[in-house]
Amino acid sequence: MTSPAIILSYPQLGENIGAAARAMKNFGLCDLRLVGPRAAWPNPKAEAMAVGASDVLDTARVYPDLKAGLAELHLVYATTARERGVTKEVLTPAEAARRLRHAAAKGWKTGILFGNERAGLENDEISLADAVITIPTSGFSSINLGQAVLLVGHEWFKAADATPASRIEHSPFHRKPTREEMFQLFDHLEKELLDSGFLFPPDKRGAMIRAIRATLHRAHLTYQEVQTLRGMIVALSKGKHRVSRP
Amino acid sequence: MTSPAIILSYPQLGENIGAAARAMKNFGLCDLRLVGPRAAWPNPKAEAMAVGASDVLDTARVYPDLKAGLAELHLVYATTARERGVTKEVLTPAEAARRLRHAAAKGWKTGILFGNERAGLENDEISLADAVITIPTSGFSSINLGQAVLLVGHEWFKAADATPASRIEHSPFHRKPTREEMFQLFDHLEKELLDSGFLFPPDKRGAMIRAIRATLHRAHLTYQEVQTLRGMIVALSKGKHRVSRP
Repeated sequence: MTSPAIILSYPQLGENIGAAARAMKNFGLCDLRLVGPRAAWPNPKAEAMAVGASDVLDTARVYPDLKAGLAELHLVYATTARERGVTKEVLTPAEAARRLRHAAAKGWKTGILFGNERAGLENDEISLADAVITIPTSGFSSINLGQAVLLVGHEWFKAADATPASRIEHSPFHRKPTREEMFQLFDHLEKELLDSGFLFPPDKRGAMIRAIRATLHRAHLTYQEVQTLRGMIVALSKGKHRVSRP
Repeated sequence: MTSPAIILSYPQLGENIGAAARAMKNFGLCDLRLVGPRAAWPNPKAEAMAVGASDVLDTARVYPDLKAGLAELHLVYATTARERGVTKEVLTPAEAARRLRHAAAKGWKTGILFGNERAGLENDEISLADAVITIPTSGFSSINLGQAVLLVGHEWFKAADATPASRIEHSPFHRKPTREEMFQLFDHLEKELLDSGFLFPPDKRGAMIRAIRATLHRAHLTYQEVQTLRGMIVALSKGKHRVSRP
């Protein structure tokens, strides 16, 4: 899977080139192309802003004009913040990411084009791209160059990311308790609650016990936490005994 | 639908508070909370960085400690860049957004907690939140405070955004041609191609015409573009006639 090239058209400030490089590296993007950079190149401010992503800057290529920077690509999307009155297909970043992945899987070379910080892409530049990406926003839309690369890169990464929507972070020492270990916790807690007089009145006892077990299940306890809870039950019941039986 | 509060815990620099406010406003987030800001407050650098989002800064509330800043919320997610060895549920930004919307629809007040720029949230701060949000990245992970607010805000906005994955941007003057108008284009082009000798040999003519029609359909032409194409056909065929019949 080849990642899309990120093409910056006539970027003005080294800082923004560095921010774009840093945003790219978070999401595994490595092909940075600078078309006619207004900033001196190489650029110390870009290096400072890239932090740990200086390798992306080191391998960046500079092109004299936009056609040269796009020449060997098969699929190019242009990012714009606003409608241009041109009848062109407009994609969400997520849909663009899906299509870029699909194209790359077929062996196509792909790229995403970003305009300069001041005015974005000109209509003539957009006319060289297959389609347009626009980031949906509320009425207020103010996303700078580095942030736009970040959002589009994030969607590209997500389109093939296997991170589960939800997971429980476990250290290697944490394991799920067996059913038997949970039953021991239930037995322990229920015995102490019975002895303490909490499970009252007797005809509500069954429902109370089931409600307490449901709470404990919902916590998705680790084995270690089961042991901690049992220690807490011991401490609390002993403490109570100390107070009530001086 | 109430949007989640964005809680910045002990933010150090006015610039980052301003960047967070600006990121928020893009996605319709308006409840900014500053817990024990290290930066002077109100802060001119925050104002400068917020650009058009100064209203978010103006209504921001300052709290002396984190518990106070979270007090009346029902559901709080804490953002972290790395695992902490605590057995806590970890969500993707998209899953968190889904749950935040779901909670808000039930009338729950929600919030998303961000740590300070230097070190992120402390484990003790994370222990006050229901679960954790971690932005999936490649091996390299370097996302600043404003960018984290931007990415999480983007996912929150997307979770209820009706923007179609793909659409064709149309000006009010652009409409889809009727079938009859497309047929007139086909007839015009095919007649001129036949006259010019392009549709040769005759036994391939039907397949050639069908392939040309498929190309034209795939372009999803507007009525205006159909008219433009017909003008181009006239110009090209007249030009050819001028050359070939001097």
